[in-house]
Amino acid sequence: LKLTVLGVGSASPQVDKNPSAFLLSIDNEYILIDCGEGTQYRLLENAIKVSRIKTICISHLHGDHYFGLIGLLSSFNLKGRKDSIALIGPEGLLEILNIQFAAANTKLNYELNFILNRNSEGKVLLDRIRFKIESIPLVHRVQSTGFLVTEKEGDRHIKAHKLPENFPIPFYKKLKDGKDVIDPLTEEVFKAKELTKKGTPKKVFAYCSDTAYYPEIVPIVKGANLMYHEATFLKDLEERAEMTQHSTALQAAMIAKASKVKKLLLGHLSSRYKSSDEHILEAKESFENVEMAIEGAVYDII
Amino acid sequence: LKLTVLGVGSASPQVDKNPSAFLLSIDNEYILIDCGEGTQYRLLENAIKVSRIKTICISHLHGDHYFGLIGLLSSFNLKGRKDSIALIGPEGLLEILNIQFAAANTKLNYELNFILNRNSEGKVLLDRIRFKIESIPLVHRVQSTGFLVTEKEGDRHIKAHKLPENFPIPFYKKLKDGKDVIDPLTEEVFKAKELTKKGTPKKVFAYCSDTAYYPEIVPIVKGANLMYHEATFLKDLEERAEMTQHSTALQAAMIAKASKVKKLLLGHLSSRYKSSDEHILEAKESFENVEMAIEGAVYDII
Repeated sequence: LKLTVLGVGSASPQVDKNPSAFLLSIDNEYILIDCGEGTQYRLLENAIKVSRIKTICISHLHGDHYFGLIGLLSSFNLKGRKDSIALIGPEGLLEILNIQFAAANTKLNYELNFILNRNSEGKVLLDRIRFKIESIPLVHRVQSTGFLVTEKEGDRHIKAHKLPENFPIPFYKKLKDGKDVIDPLTEEVFKAKELTKKGTPKKVFAYCSDTAYYPEIVPIVKGANLMYHEATFLKDLEERAEMTQHSTALQAAMIAKASKVKKLLLGHLSSRYKSSDEHILEAKESFENVEMAIEGAVYDII
Repeated sequence: LKLTVLGVGSASPQVDKNPSAFLLSIDNEYILIDCGEGTQYRLLENAIKVSRIKTICISHLHGDHYFGLIGLLSSFNLKGRKDSIALIGPEGLLEILNIQFAAANTKLNYELNFILNRNSEGKVLLDRIRFKIESIPLVHRVQSTGFLVTEKEGDRHIKAHKLPENFPIPFYKKLKDGKDVIDPLTEEVFKAKELTKKGTPKKVFAYCSDTAYYPEIVPIVKGANLMYHEATFLKDLEERAEMTQHSTALQAAMIAKASKVKKLLLGHLSSRYKSSDEHILEAKESFENVEMAIEGAVYDII
């Protein structure tokens, strides 16, 4: 599980920042989380194989989180994409896309499977072989939802040296699934517990943007390996954060501490801040393992 | 009259190109023509005072010509803009914007005066003191319209040395408007024709993108000081140009020659072309004063 940061800016456009866009890679597959204006160009610049994006999650309908989506989906079509896309988003998103496709007489060559996210707590939005995506209800001026992406535990690893030669392939698969095997001829029992060990442990990434300080999410994101949390303001502007339903760096850190995540990434800083140093200092008052999300950087989720 | 090129790419996104966006400046005022994804960032990079953009023209509803509009208009609002915008565009554009404003609970602080362009030939879309904008009907897969921007002739210049001392200010203004002045006391007649000379001659810019080869526009763009014309293909792909309703470099040059424009700028090259050299060579077969539009460059319209 790896996170590539494509854009970490906030609503006011800035020359040296891009609006929100994050790419999570699981094996050879990508999940795109939020898609601010220009995201398709960031993907090009970072030489990302866009055909591997199978899932797109949109947190909310403020432009800095989704204005790049229509361009990306249109370009997929132009390039002849055939593979379906699962698109998770709030009420209204599909209508916004469809009205623009219709205006251009665009007929999609690929299936756009829309998964309506009504922001109900803990709801599984997508369950796939390698991962699942659950919603994290957030508090913002429009419906806003975070995403909890859980990589599932890998297959059990076979202790090959403990197996007889020419051990049948179908038996391997059963053992890897954790099931005992009985040889129908010899009635010998091969115990999964003895002959295999646990697969790669599951990893969890939590995405929380945009939101006011909302401790109710703590039980949902508990123990995540990496949490991205918005930190639009510093604590001296806590009132402004409350009014605009954003968070301060300290509040993001308090969520990280209470939920015992392993690492915290901050972003979505108001354009009034020219440096992120104070955000990091402030967050460290409450939570030590914190970094600023940097555009173009790739974070291993461990 | 000056033209700043912000984006000159075509539909397929490219790392080193931006989608269509052109900024025309008349005195201290800007007209933005087309607004592909990312245009607001190009305006920032070029340090353009966006408060001076009073008019926006959208040629057609293919994404590479308008996906940046919602972001720009939203950012105007975020920055507290109060000045109205005249937005010229085809049927459907306002609905696309409004559905997105509604999804974000955005109430505009400024007036967005939408001027519906139904693509009727020679129609004056906007008539202002310093310029007028007329439509150029184009031929494309969706309704597409070019824009003819005519800077009006400047006020007549006063020959100050021919006027008596203490000549009253209101009399000046009348003379500049080309009207004779009679002094009510002395009944002396001051003839505008003798005391003034012609003001700055009018300049004309013609914008023609996207379109199939369409010689019917020749009488409309005739004599323009500068014409931008799309040249998606080279002549060996003329059939493909016809099928997709785009033009070749030669066709653009033939329009320029027939309409006796002073200068031709080409752009909107298909992403298959890595250099524009052949487009220029091909265009010069028919029209000598041709250049490739370069992003970031500013062209004096003379």
